[in-house]
Amino acid sequence: MTSATQRRSDCAVAGTLDLVGDRWSLLIVRDLFFRGPLRYGDLAVSAERIPTNTLADRLRRLEDAGIVDRERYSDHPPRHTYRLTVSGRALGPVLDAIATWGTTHIPGTRRVGAD
Amino acid sequence: MTSATQRRSDCAVAGTLDLVGDRWSLLIVRDLFFRGPLRYGDLAVSAERIPTNTLADRLRRLEDAGIVDRERYSDHPPRHTYRLTVSGRALGPVLDAIATWGTTHIPGTRRVGAD
Repeated sequence: MTSATQRRSDCAVAGTLDLVGDRWSLLIVRDLFFRGPLRYGDLAVSAERIPTNTLADRLRRLEDAGIVDRERYSDHPPRHTYRLTVSGRALGPVLDAIATWGTTHIPGTRRVGAD
Repeated sequence: MTSATQRRSDCAVAGTLDLVGDRWSLLIVRDLFFRGPLRYGDLAVSAERIPTNTLADRLRRLEDAGIVDRERYSDHPPRHTYRLTVSGRALGPVLDAIATWGTTHIPGTRRVGAD
């Protein structure tokens, strides 16, 4: 948990948002939850087309936070698969609550990945 | 729902993160959920000390998204109180799931506001 030193308060909500509180991290968690393990290229072509430099940054942060693990499957060139750790899979109820709110309050949205 | 035109996909998780997927919005929702209605100054001195220009921006976005309502309580100078709408209060389970994950997976954090 390298980001502990930057924690804003002892609030569990603030602490979690320090790790995954941005527009992209939970979408990566969503893809790994429903479709993982995935290669970098699989994540890059998700429905929302995350910019590749943002994807690399968020994967590194999620790995630092103990939410994502990576495993090398090729040495030349170096390539990895990404999967959720046990902590990462424990974000399932967060995804579920967010999806429930979205389908109820944002017209035209649906649960993707849970199909 | 003015941000509907910028929606990244029809995924309910992505749609919700378009509205509240940042480090601050759900902390404002947290404060209004547990302590609201609140004045601007009450929100500005929350535990995490949100920068005031960020607070103004996020309140405007949350209002545009139908999550927060404001009510004027002084005309000279213009001052408002902020409260969650019905949609905003429906984010309670999201806060709860995030707090549960945080207290379990981030050492030293606790449920704040639910005390």
